[in-house]
Amino acid sequence: MTQDIAERVQPGGQSALRSEAASDDTREADTPAARFARVRSRTARLAEPLSDADATAQSMPDASPAKWHLAHTSWFFEEFVIAPEMGEDARFDPDYAYLFNSYYDAVGDRHDRPRRGLLTRPTLDAVFAYRAHVDRHMTDLLEAGHPRALTLLDLGLAHEEQHQELFLTDILHLFAQNPLKPAYRETAPAAGASVRQPLEWARFDGGLVTIGADGEGFHYDCEAPRHEVRLYPFELASRPVTAREWLEFMADGGYARPEFWMSDGFAACQAEGWQAPLHWEKHDAGWHAMTLHGLQPVVPDAPVCHVSHYEADAFARWAGARLPTEQEWEHAARTAPQALDGLYADVWEWTSSAFAAYPGYRPPDGAIGEYNGKFMSGQLVLRGASCATADGHSRPSYRNFFHPDKRWQFSGLRLARDCH
Amino acid sequence: MTQDIAERVQPGGQSALRSEAASDDTREADTPAARFARVRSRTARLAEPLSDADATAQSMPDASPAKWHLAHTSWFFEEFVIAPEMGEDARFDPDYAYLFNSYYDAVGDRHDRPRRGLLTRPTLDAVFAYRAHVDRHMTDLLEAGHPRALTLLDLGLAHEEQHQELFLTDILHLFAQNPLKPAYRETAPAAGASVRQPLEWARFDGGLVTIGADGEGFHYDCEAPRHEVRLYPFELASRPVTAREWLEFMADGGYARPEFWMSDGFAACQAEGWQAPLHWEKHDAGWHAMTLHGLQPVVPDAPVCHVSHYEADAFARWAGARLPTEQEWEHAARTAPQALDGLYADVWEWTSSAFAAYPGYRPPDGAIGEYNGKFMSGQLVLRGASCATADGHSRPSYRNFFHPDKRWQFSGLRLARDCH
Amino acid sequence: MTQDIAERVQPGGQSALRSEAASDDTREADTPAARFARVRSRTARLAEPLSDADATAQSMPDASPAKWHLAHTSWFFEEFVIAPEMGEDARFDPDYAYLFNSYYDAVGDRHDRPRRGLLTRPTLDAVFAYRAHVDRHMTDLLEAGHPRALTLLDLGLAHEEQHQELFLTDILHLFAQNPLKPAYRETAPAAGASVRQPLEWARFDGGLVTIGADGEGFHYDCEAPRHEVRLYPFELASRPVTAREWLEFMADGGYARPEFWMSDGFAACQAEGWQAPLHWEKHDAGWHAMTLHGLQPVVPDAPVCHVSHYEADAFARWAGARLPTEQEWEHAARTAPQALDGLYADVWEWTSSAFAAYPGYRPPDGAIGEYNGKFMSGQLVLRGASCATADGHSRPSYRNFFHPDKRWQFSGLRLARDCH
Amino acid sequence: MTQDIAERVQPGGQSALRSEAASDDTREADTPAARFARVRSRTARLAEPLSDADATAQSMPDASPAKWHLAHTSWFFEEFVIAPEMGEDARFDPDYAYLFNSYYDAVGDRHDRPRRGLLTRPTLDAVFAYRAHVDRHMTDLLEAGHPRALTLLDLGLAHEEQHQELFLTDILHLFAQNPLKPAYRETAPAAGASVRQPLEWARFDGGLVTIGADGEGFHYDCEAPRHEVRLYPFELASRPVTAREWLEFMADGGYARPEFWMSDGFAACQAEGWQAPLHWEKHDAGWHAMTLHGLQPVVPDAPVCHVSHYEADAFARWAGARLPTEQEWEHAARTAPQALDGLYADVWEWTSSAFAAYPGYRPPDGAIGEYNGKFMSGQLVLRGASCATADGHSRPSYRNFFHPDKRWQFSGLRLARDCH
Repeated sequence: MTQDIAERVQPGGQSALRSEAASDDTREADTPAARFARVRSRTARLAEPLSDADATAQSMPDASPAKWHLAHTSWFFEEFVIAPEMGEDARFDPDYAYLFNSYYDAVGDRHDRPRRGLLTRPTLDAVFAYRAHVDRHMTDLLEAGHPRALTLLDLGLAHEEQHQELFLTDILHLFAQNPLKPAYRETAPAAGASVRQPLEWARFDGGLVTIGADGEGFHYDCEAPRHEVRLYPFELASRPVTAREWLEFMADGGYARPEFWMSDGFAACQAEGWQAPLHWEKHDAGWHAMTLHGLQPVVPDAPVCHVSHYEADAFARWAGARLPTEQEWEHAARTAPQALDGLYADVWEWTSSAFAAYPGYRPPDGAIGEYNGKFMSGQLVLRGASCATADGHSRPSYRNFFHPDKRWQFSGLRLARDCH
Repeated sequence: MTQDIAERVQPGGQSALRSEAASDDTREADTPAARFARVRSRTARLAEPLSDADATAQSMPDASPAKWHLAHTSWFFEEFVIAPEMGEDARFDPDYAYLFNSYYDAVGDRHDRPRRGLLTRPTLDAVFAYRAHVDRHMTDLLEAGHPRALTLLDLGLAHEEQHQELFLTDILHLFAQNPLKPAYRETAPAAGASVRQPLEWARFDGGLVTIGADGEGFHYDCEAPRHEVRLYPFELASRPVTAREWLEFMADGGYARPEFWMSDGFAACQAEGWQAPLHWEKHDAGWHAMTLHGLQPVVPDAPVCHVSHYEADAFARWAGARLPTEQEWEHAARTAPQALDGLYADVWEWTSSAFAAYPGYRPPDGAIGEYNGKFMSGQLVLRGASCATADGHSRPSYRNFFHPDKRWQFSGLRLARDCH
Repeated sequence: MTQDIAERVQPGGQSALRSEAASDDTREADTPAARFARVRSRTARLAEPLSDADATAQSMPDASPAKWHLAHTSWFFEEFVIAPEMGEDARFDPDYAYLFNSYYDAVGDRHDRPRRGLLTRPTLDAVFAYRAHVDRHMTDLLEAGHPRALTLLDLGLAHEEQHQELFLTDILHLFAQNPLKPAYRETAPAAGASVRQPLEWARFDGGLVTIGADGEGFHYDCEAPRHEVRLYPFELASRPVTAREWLEFMADGGYARPEFWMSDGFAACQAEGWQAPLHWEKHDAGWHAMTLHGLQPVVPDAPVCHVSHYEADAFARWAGARLPTEQEWEHAARTAPQALDGLYADVWEWTSSAFAAYPGYRPPDGAIGEYNGKFMSGQLVLRGASCATADGHSRPSYRNFFHPDKRWQFSGLRLARDCH
Repeated sequence: MTQDIAERVQPGGQSALRSEAASDDTREADTPAARFARVRSRTARLAEPLSDADATAQSMPDASPAKWHLAHTSWFFEEFVIAPEMGEDARFDPDYAYLFNSYYDAVGDRHDRPRRGLLTRPTLDAVFAYRAHVDRHMTDLLEAGHPRALTLLDLGLAHEEQHQELFLTDILHLFAQNPLKPAYRETAPAAGASVRQPLEWARFDGGLVTIGADGEGFHYDCEAPRHEVRLYPFELASRPVTAREWLEFMADGGYARPEFWMSDGFAACQAEGWQAPLHWEKHDAGWHAMTLHGLQPVVPDAPVCHVSHYEADAFARWAGARLPTEQEWEHAARTAPQALDGLYADVWEWTSSAFAAYPGYRPPDGAIGEYNGKFMSGQLVLRGASCATADGHSRPSYRNFFHPDKRWQFSGLRLARDCH
């Protein structure tokens, strides 16, 4: 039986939420309908530890309620597959298109994002009924070999897997606001370091290299076209920056010394009063971090997590290094993955690259074109994967992206430097 | 059997939530413990129609979650009676003092008010366990005739009754934010006008009159000392302003004509985009109002509700009248209640009086002194009672108070004018 | 020669800006035109120490540029006397009605208040040409005995005198923002205490007393009708609270102890970070205050100045006293002025009374009715006068008013207490 | 005699503020001191049309007062040349380091940027005295061949030339806020189109091309190191987008159709209520734009100006094209300038490139390293030059940069598209 992605525990501060690769490979009949069922049921299982209230609350405008994630991922299939093919009458409830559209302007108005937490109705039970309704219709369409269902299946499941990760980051953020510091999972994290010590540098010669999705397996539109870029020689750290190193940065006054920071970054740092990564708290017994297992002591040898791009960039400058570009990261990940620990393990890694279109990129027509294309402004690329990323959702060409001040994702960094 | 205060339906737009006076009077053994049990169980019954999520969400900083009301009213007894008398160990959970203190500085820190809606834990079940724990201890103390329990019983029950009303105004506000417009109670409101038509004017000569609590029955500190004031001749309307009259004000451009408004009021009106009472929506089928029974057509002959002091004041000026002072209101309510419809029925009535100390007023010592005393700044007095006010919670000297821009209470107005 | 109201210096922290009563009484020919000329020229002289830039800048939305005061006081006569009588062509510049209307909705649109400081044009010279134009026309009308000019003269001059005080408070606020701490007047303040030490209490029996303007000389609409109020016995301090006493309040943690504060007041105190009166700065050499003479050491025996109503109210509670009501203040000022130091001297005195209509009050018809009437919401009454108040602008019935969080006026307090 | 950079008028809506290349080339004795004097005197002449108040006001936090530009450009030489070489006593006034530092953390605290407009003192005269003081010292050092003066001369003058442009954009913004719409220069703009009609497309093959400063003449640190990039075939428009084309975008609902916009861009568009370029106003006689010559009719064939990156990007998508990358722009400007009208003429041209470090870039040590390096976050590159750019300040490698929502610069766009 497939293990829940939220069950395992990783040594090092945050929970390992990824399932065993092995267990996922036990796919007796990997039909489209079976793949659909597997991803959908995993989403549903994420809600098991939650009360109706847990699933409804919204801790900040950036985050969404768990219930909303459960419904929105269903709406995606209803809006783009079921309604176009089976008619409007096949919708579970016509109001849900308004309530659970996220940001697709092409398909109509939507409920105001910062007010998602006020939707105490529909109840969690009603949302599960919605999921069952969508599951039935999608299964029928997939088993009938319906072309649109098959065409959009990969995107719909990738979309759902992204929301599985957001589900967990958002619940963590919500529980972190609660003075009771509730645990999402009670399992105690195991001790021990997760990454090699000390740090080594892997060297890359650069030159004219090719990046972008290679056409094997699913990829998002923004990972293409595959194209050449000119890289200069660089080195990449053998592992992400650790909590121990971050504590040194803090002890050296890193959060108060503008010489390490971008101008916008230091302004954000001061306005928000940052003095440590998000979810960290100083106790008499030392630094603790709020995790999906509740408040836990910071594990020095684990990758630092919940830092913004601004902080990552300042840390790199303090360390006499820099963040890699996303092209450097991808090239390295393609050519020397064995030299690089934790590429798809604990934390997403901030790069110095603004999220932008690759040469020749065109968004798909229609509402699906809004999936990635309209976010190519003001956001920075993260590469790799985190402990909350679904299995099978990691690849060298994958481009995650967030605004540079965001900290509630499982985001860390890996250092780079020029070769001399 | 006592009827729930949230069961009845009043003709005229909003629900009549008040219980039959008769049913409440059937008090076979009106011991302190019985009175305590009656009020407490009524609070609990208010939560029956709510899900855990409904009870947790907070629609704005002014409003509190239903779960919070349930817990805070219990904390009040725990903090001021149980813990002082039975020791800190008698507390249900030491964290609750932090979570459920409202505004009492003298008893320690507290959870930030605008973040009450993030407290998905403790769960609703846990809060009911808390209530049961407090009920047991209080019942023991009351039955043992414990002096502090007896002394603070009236205040604690009055406090709880106030929160019964806030519970309902806050749930209404929450449900009004939901595009699904859920009903708190499904019962359909009966038709028919609730107040006499047309309006008549009752005349009062004024002179040196006495106002303030007369010492019979419980009163809050701010209703005393009883004292004389000099009133000039005035007239008071025989009933509150109705929705029909308010629609005339709207049709006459009342919300867009600064000549009727206080300067601060018109600024608020424009900043907030007010064009009708709160919870009103214009549909093809005419004006509707969100009520505890869901969205309902506005009833023209019912008292207008959910207007701010600023709007009430502007309406009065438009009507060639004014709001009464709280002293005028009390004097009239004491001397000619039969001439005045709906004094304690549908809506609280805004007065022109700032909430301030009566001559010789002194707040009680200690935290209890914070109950009313520290709000004597920036708020306006409302008199009477509303459809959501608990039985036995109405009297001529009662002073309710809110900031002049607040609209989510069951607030309306009654006109006054000078005698010529 | 009449002494400028901004020339004198008062012992005790702030400048004495009031002219010698004697010098003003030397009125050889007190014709309307002569009175007009005297007030107008005094306003003009206030601008002498200012550069064009000084006269243009606006330090906050509450304050207005000096140039704006110079123009607005002229616009008042143009709008309400010259244009109605001599026609629109008699206006100096038709744009000025838009630029220099303050808040009169009845006479048209106006420039947005917070953006007054962007009006670098018209220049200061152009504004003085405007003043000369208005002076010529008004003088002609007054000398011709024109009824409207004569009727509105008192109000127009009282209005101009109010702006003389605002001119000074606003310039002080502007200069206080400048790290160079420029002096408006270079004259060094003389040393010495201005009020009697120690404080005594004057007792008043109260009863049914009469307050409000008595019809002798000019008064604003809001000072009438004259009417009776019922007062209870009270005592009033013989002098305003001093800086020395305020320092004791500060030393006792007054700004950090919520038990002394109204709820709204403490919220403002914390949001604004108040730790001392406005314009106070702690230096190695002790507390200093920014004054119209630049930064000066705080004079312990002078009345404390630049405190908000919230602070004044908290101080009074700390001191075991309270603020007087405006009726108590007026009654005391009428019946025992000899027992009360500094009633019209250094600082306006906050009362506990909300600014509201007297019984039977009706604002005048038309735009002039907006002068006071529309501010009877949210503001608190101050009584007396300050060092920046024009001569002849003080009387027992005078009602000044500001919102309770405002501090940039010359505002202090006098204690009251109940008699036992 | 050298013509003032703010004197000429360009056909097409905005003023041509650039001096004749010829007149600047008449450099009889181009010594360092002569170059210094030429740039400095040009700055001073920009202030001639301004009053003291004009030079002091600040219209928004992004803009600075003219007086501040005059002082800050002098402070730059004082801080980085005069004080280090001649000692602290050589400073004009020690307070000025605090008042006129812009953003250099390494040299100490500074006055808060949004409050620059409150500095009515020092006066404009005092600032000119400051300039004369700095001019004398710098001239002495330059004539003595002092190494640090010579080393920093180019940077200091380039800095001053940048502020010449900001001086003009900031004054235009200030005057645009004034309902009187004052003209900075009275000269009427000549009529006629400034760019070729119709638009043509210049084709570029791309490949491995070299960009970055080539070492001839001064360049900023961020223009280096020179390096190779891989470009794909693209086309670039022969001229910037015109006002006529922008009006078509507006007429087609461009500002209200989210499908053309980045998500962040549409949010800004709606929050700010954009419906046309900044400084445009619709009058009965058609669209007008506020310019340095006052309010003028929009010239259809002139390049559109005062658009944000968000708007430029949306326009390009509406037009079926895109913005060029900065590398495409530079490559085209180097290899086919004759095919491209107006590269350095009317408006800066937004590119799609985030302002970031070139491969191998290192900021200089010390405070000078803050000049560009700390802004490599959140800003977009503009290329070319505008009508307000100083002569000699334009080159193919020049990188201007602003946040994507900024509109008050002379910013327009040129379209690009992929080759098929």
